Amino acid sequence: MIIQLEPGCTENQLRVIRASVEAAGYQHNDVTTQSGHYLVCIGTGDFDIRNIGTLAGIQDIHRVSDAQKLVSAKWKVGHTEISIADGVRIGNGHFQIMAGPCSIESAEQISEVAGHLKAHDVRIMRGGVFKPRTSPYSFRGLGIEGLKVFSDICRAEGICIITEVMQSDQIAAMYPYVDIFQVGARNMQNYNLLDALGEVDTPVLLKRGISGTIKELLYSAEYIFSGGNERIMLCERGIRTFEPAYRNTLDLNGVALLKEKTHLPVVVDPSHGIGIRRFVGQMTLAGVAAGADGVILEVHPRPDQAASDAQQTLGFDAASAIYRKSRALREVLAS
Amino acid sequence: MIIQLEPGCTENQLRVIRASVEAAGYQHNDVTTQSGHYLVCIGTGDFDIRNIGTLAGIQDIHRVSDAQKLVSAKWKVGHTEISIADGVRIGNGHFQIMAGPCSIESAEQISEVAGHLKAHDVRIMRGGVFKPRTSPYSFRGLGIEGLKVFSDICRAEGICIITEVMQSDQIAAMYPYVDIFQVGARNMQNYNLLDALGEVDTPVLLKRGISGTIKELLYSAEYIFSGGNERIMLCERGIRTFEPAYRNTLDLNGVALLKEKTHLPVVVDPSHGIGIRRFVGQMTLAGVAAGADGVILEVHPRPDQAASDAQQTLGFDAASAIYRKSRALREVLAS
Amino acid sequence: MIIQLEPGCTENQLRVIRASVEAAGYQHNDVTTQSGHYLVCIGTGDFDIRNIGTLAGIQDIHRVSDAQKLVSAKWKVGHTEISIADGVRIGNGHFQIMAGPCSIESAEQISEVAGHLKAHDVRIMRGGVFKPRTSPYSFRGLGIEGLKVFSDICRAEGICIITEVMQSDQIAAMYPYVDIFQVGARNMQNYNLLDALGEVDTPVLLKRGISGTIKELLYSAEYIFSGGNERIMLCERGIRTFEPAYRNTLDLNGVALLKEKTHLPVVVDPSHGIGIRRFVGQMTLAGVAAGADGVILEVHPRPDQAASDAQQTLGFDAASAIYRKSRALREVLAS
Amino acid sequence: MIIQLEPGCTENQLRVIRASVEAAGYQHNDVTTQSGHYLVCIGTGDFDIRNIGTLAGIQDIHRVSDAQKLVSAKWKVGHTEISIADGVRIGNGHFQIMAGPCSIESAEQISEVAGHLKAHDVRIMRGGVFKPRTSPYSFRGLGIEGLKVFSDICRAEGICIITEVMQSDQIAAMYPYVDIFQVGARNMQNYNLLDALGEVDTPVLLKRGISGTIKELLYSAEYIFSGGNERIMLCERGIRTFEPAYRNTLDLNGVALLKEKTHLPVVVDPSHGIGIRRFVGQMTLAGVAAGADGVILEVHPRPDQAASDAQQTLGFDAASAIYRKSRALREVLAS
Repeated sequence: MIIQLEPGCTENQLRVIRASVEAAGYQHNDVTTQSGHYLVCIGTGDFDIRNIGTLAGIQDIHRVSDAQKLVSAKWKVGHTEISIADGVRIGNGHFQIMAGPCSIESAEQISEVAGHLKAHDVRIMRGGVFKPRTSPYSFRGLGIEGLKVFSDICRAEGICIITEVMQSDQIAAMYPYVDIFQVGARNMQNYNLLDALGEVDTPVLLKRGISGTIKELLYSAEYIFSGGNERIMLCERGIRTFEPAYRNTLDLNGVALLKEKTHLPVVVDPSHGIGIRRFVGQMTLAGVAAGADGVILEVHPRPDQAASDAQQTLGFDAASAIYRKSRALREVLAS
Repeated sequence: MIIQLEPGCTENQLRVIRASVEAAGYQHNDVTTQSGHYLVCIGTGDFDIRNIGTLAGIQDIHRVSDAQKLVSAKWKVGHTEISIADGVRIGNGHFQIMAGPCSIESAEQISEVAGHLKAHDVRIMRGGVFKPRTSPYSFRGLGIEGLKVFSDICRAEGICIITEVMQSDQIAAMYPYVDIFQVGARNMQNYNLLDALGEVDTPVLLKRGISGTIKELLYSAEYIFSGGNERIMLCERGIRTFEPAYRNTLDLNGVALLKEKTHLPVVVDPSHGIGIRRFVGQMTLAGVAAGADGVILEVHPRPDQAASDAQQTLGFDAASAIYRKSRALREVLAS
Repeated sequence: MIIQLEPGCTENQLRVIRASVEAAGYQHNDVTTQSGHYLVCIGTGDFDIRNIGTLAGIQDIHRVSDAQKLVSAKWKVGHTEISIADGVRIGNGHFQIMAGPCSIESAEQISEVAGHLKAHDVRIMRGGVFKPRTSPYSFRGLGIEGLKVFSDICRAEGICIITEVMQSDQIAAMYPYVDIFQVGARNMQNYNLLDALGEVDTPVLLKRGISGTIKELLYSAEYIFSGGNERIMLCERGIRTFEPAYRNTLDLNGVALLKEKTHLPVVVDPSHGIGIRRFVGQMTLAGVAAGADGVILEVHPRPDQAASDAQQTLGFDAASAIYRKSRALREVLAS
Repeated sequence: MIIQLEPGCTENQLRVIRASVEAAGYQHNDVTTQSGHYLVCIGTGDFDIRNIGTLAGIQDIHRVSDAQKLVSAKWKVGHTEISIADGVRIGNGHFQIMAGPCSIESAEQISEVAGHLKAHDVRIMRGGVFKPRTSPYSFRGLGIEGLKVFSDICRAEGICIITEVMQSDQIAAMYPYVDIFQVGARNMQNYNLLDALGEVDTPVLLKRGISGTIKELLYSAEYIFSGGNERIMLCERGIRTFEPAYRNTLDLNGVALLKEKTHLPVVVDPSHGIGIRRFVGQMTLAGVAAGADGVILEVHPRPDQAASDAQQTLGFDAASAIYRKSRALREVLAS
């Protein structure tokens, strides 16, 4: 059960509400976010909503049978819309393309990609500066100094930045330069990181783990929301299956299901989802057709020389064609 | 290596060709289909094509590095087009919708569905009369008598029939009534059945097993083709993964990959692929966007009363909307 | 619910019993096996056993909440013991080793293996004559003629034969030469084959499919049992997972669970379960420790020259050590 | 390639060695651990070991074709033995049982378990104080204060402590109280945590992720080792597969393979590996038979009241029987 509190709910009113909830044998969690104040109540007994419905300070009460409460579509009217920058919104009918290299490599590379994005009206650039790498001997990214350069160039061009954060103690240093924090698939259940991202107001794109269930993904989003940050996007980026023919298996069933189960925007990452450059176009369109609110694509000026994930990275021409087709498809579907 | 023989290749010419192949240390398999005569040559040594290229009786020679030969896209120019009936073609740019109930239940049910299909210009009706059921105590279908009724009604309406065959000894009795033999997911590696389907000229729709790899699916198709039947469609219908939220995980990566690796048409079954009625629409569109040449849908006049698979079966209204949207999408993508 | 009928139950008594079951809204399936006569009753309503408990002709009535009835451990006291030949028993405390080549290749090969087995008191030889092969161009086995030679040599040595049957129409020809019919993993849900094996009295070893759940395996065994053949062994042989380091993932959890859920003997196939020769010894012991009633091993006089599955096939010396250790372990565990 | 440096290798000698490695086009990583000093050299070109073999300061040079270098069995003679406390060793023939509750709940609970362990000569107690929980509303452990109590009681009894660390910034505070840091399955690829654990000298038990491959597990261990900590144990605790009948699928193939690929000790966690209390005994024995150097078991004075994972937690009597049997089995296998 979620109790939405009135904006001006006083401490005294809150005390009375808490006592009533406790009297019914329910545990309560006090959640204050950018846009709301909630008591998330967990319990199993019968609860007669009329017992508290008339208490002062309560705006609304919602029964939510899902184990994930705040991220559930069962209480919120409509879909969440996240405003990332002026005119850059996602969710609730707004579609965004995010594109850029796997790893930030140099100022020149950033400028080239930023120019390409601007030319095609793509407003969000992806690029990693802290790279989770399977081997300790691989390139691990340019770090915070790389992020500053990334930010300088993109801000000048009016382009927003999405980049991966790997650990809670990186957040403070990254905060001034980041428009969307990305939680990578390996960290979907890094609960300390999720807790810490609940405490900032920056939007978060939470990637599904390679073996994360839909339920676990929603639980992880609940960590961020209950920590105080409502601005969450979920991202399907391929799961691990028995099939060796592609790097991952893009699970578009998950997109269809998530769009029903949660009010949060859902993004598809076809680059990781199939991992083979020449199929990214089709899978982007399939993701849009399945209902995605956005796509995130790996793009590089010279894809074969990309510092990481070269196999799945698109060149500018191929990428441009995909932007155009996915927008066209999005319009057809909306009409 | 595939040697395409000339239509009039004589037995003497063939003997010379075989001897040359053997001299190079290659094994050969003589394959005669509806439309061609091939020697499929398997071996690992160096083979100088010039040694046989000038022999009489040879139309063309193709190196095929894939382990699957005849079904590979590496030798055949263009995509295979299968003509199922007058004006009912699939593949090579032609798109088909197949729809109907999981199980054939009665003449009335067949008539209702056939009328619905005709009204929406759907030319192929699906319906099972031999049902593979997990439990021996479940309804196993109406059998050959049901198929006859199915055929009578559909032929009168000009609608083609696709139905599942489970075992080679059913083929002869079913043959007169069937336009497409369906091989179910559980039988993808029932090699005796595949061999036997190589000996008929009826088109075959071969479903991918729930844990069949793309490579194994192509090998199974190779059984049918090398048995003598070129008229094969492949079908992605969902794989088994760790995710419990849906019955299967529709693997649209597989569609993108198959469209490159083979010249055969690829069909998507979103009904089994997600297994939940209210998501079948989105997943159909996603399948079309991924490049499918056709879709196969479970449709029933009263879906909640369907004798099997009710959970994923569409009613007429929902199905009609999907036919319309998937055709519209198909046109947008082709333009 | 399972109604065990008295051996002398008359047709009139049976009619009364059936009517009572029907009156309660239950469907019934009449099953006669080598050793029993049962009515398997399927239904969901309340059923007061007292209403039929006193009827003549009934030996016992068992509620079985599992969906799989006759194979469930919930009704049968103790474990099933299968006698394969004089002094060759499996289950209910009896342990058997089955060993031999993947494919039968020649009389010489059979004799060598048979001699080896006899020297080590192994009473059951495995060997395929109909081989399910992924590629249509691979060696498919020596067929029925090979089986006759196999049988001649083994019978002379007092060794039993287990070999794979792929299709129902092979059963009659194979019947005189086979002591245990093996159903391969690819055919776990080939229901026509399972039905047909219900009609013979030869023991059947049913392998779990590479993506078959424990529940589906038990349902498939229920096909054979309800068809009339109680003499069923189940076999864990590795499942398909995301892990590429071994051919399959041997699922010994399944052995532990099966030993609780069913009264049937459970065999482990470590050769396929890991697919790498030098680990088969450890995995055999692990299987025995998990509770297996038998193991089935690939053994060949010259394993590197085996016609199929050479990678996982043991030579005689390695195999002998495994026989010895697994028997020793079995004794330790029993004490 | 791994260059083992002499204990007294001077900075000048090291400079010459590095220059020679660079001249050959190899990247080098300088690794100093508790017991050694290494240059891990990564490159693909030909490298003539004779060019550097005679340089001063080098103790030994090993070609290691595996991508994981320091953890590979290819360079180290024999198996790593880790001494956790006086007389508490694991690996290289030494076997350890670790047992205790999922979560530390109270001083009384700790005392009860410690007494039980002491009575059965189990020297290592497990117990979580920082609990990674799928839901943010679940009990997350008693934290550092709980750990202090845990430590006080166990130290007094001469029992070592293994407990989970979730994030690098917890390490310093936990360090004085912990004998083995456990990295949980969800954090197998939390590279910042692995890096940080490379900087302490406390032994680490690294659990395989639920969808971690053997290769990825070894890479993660390489992070810790190359960070400077050689004292690593690997732990198989069940993987995620399609099978819903158990919480995870214990992958004992992984144990057999790891024992060949790495010199590090391998521990099995049958409690999580099957997740059902009454099967933990069999799976423990199976793990021992597969070659495990240790097992880790969930044990609680009143298992049904355990604060977490009650379903798989053993009571004292069941646990005692398992200790006895697994030790007996271990002896039989060693003899």
